[in-house]
Amino acid sequence: MIKIAKLLTFTLFSTFMSSATLAAVEHSALLNETEAQLAMQLTTSLVVEIGPRLAGSPADRKAVAWAQQHFKALGYDKVWTEEFKTPYWQRGHARLEVVSPFPQSITLTALGGSVGTPASGLHGQLVVFDSLEALQAAPRDQVQGKMVFINKAMAKDKAGAFYGQVAPIRSQGAIEASKKGAIAILIRSVGTSQNRFAHTGKMSYAEGVPPIPAVAVSVPDALQLLQILKRAPDAQLMLQMQNTTEDAISHNVVAEITGSERPDEIVLISAHLDSWDQGTGALDDGAGVGLVMATGALLKQQGRPKRTIRVVLFGNEEGGLVGARAYAAKHAKDLKSHVLAAESDFGAGLVYQFDSYFGNNALPFADKIQQQLAPLNIAKGHNKAYGGPDISVLKALGVPVVTLEQDGTDYFDYHHTPNDTLDKIDPKALAQNLQAWVIMTRMVANSDIDFRL
Amino acid sequence: MIKIAKLLTFTLFSTFMSSATLAAVEHSALLNETEAQLAMQLTTSLVVEIGPRLAGSPADRKAVAWAQQHFKALGYDKVWTEEFKTPYWQRGHARLEVVSPFPQSITLTALGGSVGTPASGLHGQLVVFDSLEALQAAPRDQVQGKMVFINKAMAKDKAGAFYGQVAPIRSQGAIEASKKGAIAILIRSVGTSQNRFAHTGKMSYAEGVPPIPAVAVSVPDALQLLQILKRAPDAQLMLQMQNTTEDAISHNVVAEITGSERPDEIVLISAHLDSWDQGTGALDDGAGVGLVMATGALLKQQGRPKRTIRVVLFGNEEGGLVGARAYAAKHAKDLKSHVLAAESDFGAGLVYQFDSYFGNNALPFADKIQQQLAPLNIAKGHNKAYGGPDISVLKALGVPVVTLEQDGTDYFDYHHTPNDTLDKIDPKALAQNLQAWVIMTRMVANSDIDFRL
Repeated sequence: MIKIAKLLTFTLFSTFMSSATLAAVEHSALLNETEAQLAMQLTTSLVVEIGPRLAGSPADRKAVAWAQQHFKALGYDKVWTEEFKTPYWQRGHARLEVVSPFPQSITLTALGGSVGTPASGLHGQLVVFDSLEALQAAPRDQVQGKMVFINKAMAKDKAGAFYGQVAPIRSQGAIEASKKGAIAILIRSVGTSQNRFAHTGKMSYAEGVPPIPAVAVSVPDALQLLQILKRAPDAQLMLQMQNTTEDAISHNVVAEITGSERPDEIVLISAHLDSWDQGTGALDDGAGVGLVMATGALLKQQGRPKRTIRVVLFGNEEGGLVGARAYAAKHAKDLKSHVLAAESDFGAGLVYQFDSYFGNNALPFADKIQQQLAPLNIAKGHNKAYGGPDISVLKALGVPVVTLEQDGTDYFDYHHTPNDTLDKIDPKALAQNLQAWVIMTRMVANSDIDFRL
Repeated sequence: MIKIAKLLTFTLFSTFMSSATLAAVEHSALLNETEAQLAMQLTTSLVVEIGPRLAGSPADRKAVAWAQQHFKALGYDKVWTEEFKTPYWQRGHARLEVVSPFPQSITLTALGGSVGTPASGLHGQLVVFDSLEALQAAPRDQVQGKMVFINKAMAKDKAGAFYGQVAPIRSQGAIEASKKGAIAILIRSVGTSQNRFAHTGKMSYAEGVPPIPAVAVSVPDALQLLQILKRAPDAQLMLQMQNTTEDAISHNVVAEITGSERPDEIVLISAHLDSWDQGTGALDDGAGVGLVMATGALLKQQGRPKRTIRVVLFGNEEGGLVGARAYAAKHAKDLKSHVLAAESDFGAGLVYQFDSYFGNNALPFADKIQQQLAPLNIAKGHNKAYGGPDISVLKALGVPVVTLEQDGTDYFDYHHTPNDTLDKIDPKALAQNLQAWVIMTRMVANSDIDFRL
């Protein structure tokens, strides 16, 4: 058994490790093959047994129970939940039809939080813009009474750099379109694949601006609409959609490995437990959940670290960081005990860079961490780490953060679509992530460094 | 203008032509840039203006009108339709749910021709097989009262060689499962992508065997089901589906460029006008429609060929070659005047090989054709050409056929899914196809060769 395990370990890490020898990594931090699979096992369990888990839904409650049960089984010292109130938005029936002159159905999805239409649907022409700015600059009479269609393509990038440029169309489009009297807004999916999936995601309304229905169409359907409009600029469309919102509760799930020497100093590692409803939430964020749950468990197994490891599975990230804000509010007075926070929420691609957001005094320690990560092909990054969506809330309150930057080149092919399924995760890449999380978290938890800026 | 056209021609063909010089091709057969785009223009028009066109549907009737109108506009000498009776099967609401222990929805599609379920749905466990043979070999009590799930993966191949091995599960599965008392059959999609699309396609029932509902699940859902069954072999599922079938009529659309010297000798080139309902029928078979319509038009433009070019757009290929059989029945007495038949129905990939099904006397001419195609990187094939699905009906009745073999490596990623959309066609690859069709058809139509075996 031992021989086989050793052989497998070698195979596993030789796949990802650069020419720097294994010896460069502190030996006791290296995972054997069985350990390296723990994140994938947990992710698989969540994704298969719970499936999609929209915040506030029955599946969300099941996911919370699943997380508690598995934290306990993994040997965490403390496991608890923190309740918060949240809207529970539910997607209903949605239909977008070209009525004339070329009758056909368009593949769409409601954007998260969107209101529905009257039961008989909304009828109108399209007016096309290539950006939010172009819509903002348009005269009102160009938009009034029409459906706005914003067609902006998103390019691929390892770091997902273009998401931040395109996502505001999704979040702000309904507000800007409604201000000019539009009856609905369609956006080209914020995504990078040519597959006929519409990408959902949170949208917003503004006080005093009438809420209008907001949907995304798939990329092939956006292109089809453009072709239709080229031939028939006054094509008539019909949008029919029912969505509902009710008040609900959800929970952050928190678990700790108590520190052996400085239990009051908290190293927080996190992911989000909720997912959109279209896929099974494997990449977003089943992978992150598996990674951080496994990290704490393996660290205890390797010998209890000096500081406390707190794993937080945030609720309702997708609906607007609802769980993260609840956590920050509840822990406002003890955030100074949070020595560091990190999150895994960018799929399951290989980690390629280590970024920090540290005070100057702690920068040499960032280098030390990166040196231990280097054999996994993880490069030195910058000191402007984002941390992750939920963690950005804590960062804004002064908590130092790090990011294990993952290759997200294909992430937005799947993100927020029905296509976010378990088969999109490469178990070997997830194992590399886990090794990196274990090394990084262990170093931080065993140090006495103050990372604050 | 002429200068630009020449430059573009050079660019176009230099992309696809091998080191053999352009001079190797009979100069007057070479298309300029404008001509080379004609197939893409026609395909785009059909796919955008009609969209999906299931046989017997209102869109099918529109497609027939579209085809007649465009044949006339393209200068065809004769244009007519040939009516036939056909079942008009319509997909209704379909839902497959894991009820317990892990409630979740499974992405599915009805197989074409499938009956529905009772309104309250069918409830049962799954029994999994990895092939049709394994199902056939199973004892009845293993299957009785359950839903059969056949999970067979399909591999990629340039020539689509594995389709023929896996498709019988789709066509025969319901019969074999019903013989053993199954209440429904689920198959893993007959397709090669990991995208969460279920692939539809025609299925069959047999006289005397009770018809049971038949559906395909997407590949990610097939994998999810296997994971669920690993944890819960007695998982309960619920299938609810409404489909309808009624009698309808449809049409083959036929158009001719009358031969200048031997007008009674017919060179038949074809594609099918109908499509499945899930996608927009761009690859299957909008591309083929555009190609053969353009070929006849360009041949007339180059100087009327000696033999008649007959372009047939078959109706209801997808429902089981219904239009092709009607054509064969109607033309039973004049099939001897069909000197050759060919079909384009394998997407829009580059043509890489020329196959014939000729008598020995005509084989040297097959070589001549291939020599003219060689600069387009089209290799010499074999003399066992299939011809195409509709054309296989004519071949069986003694009509010689050829196939311009297309690279179908990715064809079964899209085929019969919602993802069969216009953006999947590379216009340059379609232009290479068109050039090949023009060269091949022109040579055949200007020859006096008897191709019969």
